[in-house]
Amino acid sequence: MKSYLDCIPCFFDQALRAVRVATNDEQKQKHLMDELGKRLSQISLESTPPETGRLIYRMVREISGNDDPYRELKRQSTQQTLALYPALKKEIDTSKDSLLTAIRIAIAGNVIDFGANAEFDIDAALKETLQQDFAICDFAEFKESLEACNSILFIGDNAGETVFDRLLIEQMNKPTTYVVRETPVINDAVAEDAVMAGIDKVATIVSSGTDAPGTILSLCSDEFLQMLDRAEFTIAKGQGNYEGLSNESYRIFFLLKTKCRIIARDIGVNKGDIILKGINL
Amino acid sequence: MKSYLDCIPCFFDQALRAVRVATNDEQKQKHLMDELGKRLSQISLESTPPETGRLIYRMVREISGNDDPYRELKRQSTQQTLALYPALKKEIDTSKDSLLTAIRIAIAGNVIDFGANAEFDIDAALKETLQQDFAICDFAEFKESLEACNSILFIGDNAGETVFDRLLIEQMNKPTTYVVRETPVINDAVAEDAVMAGIDKVATIVSSGTDAPGTILSLCSDEFLQMLDRAEFTIAKGQGNYEGLSNESYRIFFLLKTKCRIIARDIGVNKGDIILKGINL
Repeated sequence: MKSYLDCIPCFFDQALRAVRVATNDEQKQKHLMDELGKRLSQISLESTPPETGRLIYRMVREISGNDDPYRELKRQSTQQTLALYPALKKEIDTSKDSLLTAIRIAIAGNVIDFGANAEFDIDAALKETLQQDFAICDFAEFKESLEACNSILFIGDNAGETVFDRLLIEQMNKPTTYVVRETPVINDAVAEDAVMAGIDKVATIVSSGTDAPGTILSLCSDEFLQMLDRAEFTIAKGQGNYEGLSNESYRIFFLLKTKCRIIARDIGVNKGDIILKGINL
Repeated sequence: MKSYLDCIPCFFDQALRAVRVATNDEQKQKHLMDELGKRLSQISLESTPPETGRLIYRMVREISGNDDPYRELKRQSTQQTLALYPALKKEIDTSKDSLLTAIRIAIAGNVIDFGANAEFDIDAALKETLQQDFAICDFAEFKESLEACNSILFIGDNAGETVFDRLLIEQMNKPTTYVVRETPVINDAVAEDAVMAGIDKVATIVSSGTDAPGTILSLCSDEFLQMLDRAEFTIAKGQGNYEGLSNESYRIFFLLKTKCRIIARDIGVNKGDIILKGINL
C-alpha cells in the first residue's frame, strides 16, 4: 500500500509517542519532530507507510540513544497474554469451529500495537472480536490452502500478539516457520519476544532481516525472500505486513483488525473491522 | 497558552484539511506539508498555537493561490444558523434564566470551527449544550460585570457562530463593539461575515487587525489594543482567543467549548466541556 497525505499527521503522532517512550527529555522530543519535519519532503507518497515508520524509529533510536524503547512494554504485553493462554486454549477446543475461533483470537491479539494506537484493552478486544462479523472472510480458501500444504510460513507482527499466534499455529498443526523482525522497532516481535511467547515450542523462528515495522521486500534478507518464494501457504498478521505486501504478487492470507481509516479505505472496509483476506488467490 | 508537542501532529492535520479546502491539486497539498515540515524547527513551543495557525494559513494561501478558501463554507454556516435564529430567540425569551441560556447558545455556536474539527453537527451541539453542566461557570462575576459596565467589548470567533453571538448581544442589551479578524483565516469571522449575521444591527463591528486565527496582542492593531485597554467588560469566544489571551493581564470572560484535549488540559477540564471562565477577576 502506498502512503496517503493523511498518513503525514499520523507519522508525527507516531513519532511523538515513540520518542516519549524512548526519552523524557522534551528538547530531544522536539528535536525529533523537527528532524522528521526536515525530512518530510524526501518522503514520497509512493513509499509504503512502514518505510517511513522505519525512518522514524531509526531517528528515535539515534536521537534518544535508546535502542529498544519498547522492550519492557513488550515483555509486559507477552506476560499479560500468556496469562490468558489456558482460557483461550479451552475456548478454541470447545468451540464449534476451532480453526475459525483460533483465527479470531489471533486477530484480536492484533490490537496490541503501540504504533497504531495510544491505548488498547486486550480483554475488551477479545470479547468484541470473538463475536464480530468479518468484513472480509476468505475462510474457505484459507482452509483449502491449509489442508493442501505441507508447511506454513507465518509472518508475525507485535509482541504479545505472538501468544495468540501460537494458539493458531497449534490449531493448524503443521510444520510452521514464524517470521519476526530482525531488530527492535516499536513493539514488533523480534526473536526473543517470540521465544518468550513459547513460539519456539511450536514453530521455527526466523527473521525477515528488516528493522521496518512491516514486511517490505526490498528491505528483507535473501534468506527470507527465498522462503517466501518457496512457501506453500503464507499468513501475514497486522497492518504493517499488509502495507508492505498488499501489492506484491504472492498468494498471502492477511489476518488483521483495521485500526486506521486509511488502511481500511485501501482495503474497502471500515475502521475497526476484522479481516481474513487472501490476495492472488 | 503556549504550544505543546502534541500540537505538532495537529498542525499538520489542520494544514492538510485547509489545503484540501483551498485546492484539489495533490502536488500542492504535499508541497504545503513539506514546507510546514521545513519550518517546524523555527516554531517554538513558547509561541501560541494561533501564531502557528497564522503561519499555516498564510502558506495555504500562498501555495494554493486561494485567498479565502473558506468563504463559501462561511456563507453556508451563516445561512444555516440564521435559519435557527427565530427559534433560539424564543428559547431565550421563554427560559428561566434568559442570560444564561443566551450564553449557552453562544457557546454551542462555537462548534462551527473548521480549524479544530473535521466535522460538526450544529443541531446536536445546541441540544447538548443547552443541557450540559458547565465545567467552569463564573456566571455571578459575569453578571456583576455586565450590570456595572456601560459598554461591552465582544471578541468574536467563527462565522456562523456570529449569529449566536448576536443573540447574546441582544440579551445583554448594552452598547457593544464586536471584534472580527482583519483578513480571512480558516472560517474565522471577518467584517462581511459579521454583517451577514446581522451583527451590524446590534453592535459596532471593528477588526483586531490580525490575520491569526486568535487574538495575539503583538499581532493586533494599536486601535484594537487601545480598545482592550479601555474596555469595561470584555468577552472572548472560542479556543483561538483563549490561546492568545489566557496569559495576558486583562480581565476577560472566555466563552468556549473545549474541542481539543490539550486546551482542555491547560484549563483543567475535559475535552467537550463548556466553559464560562473569567481571568484576572
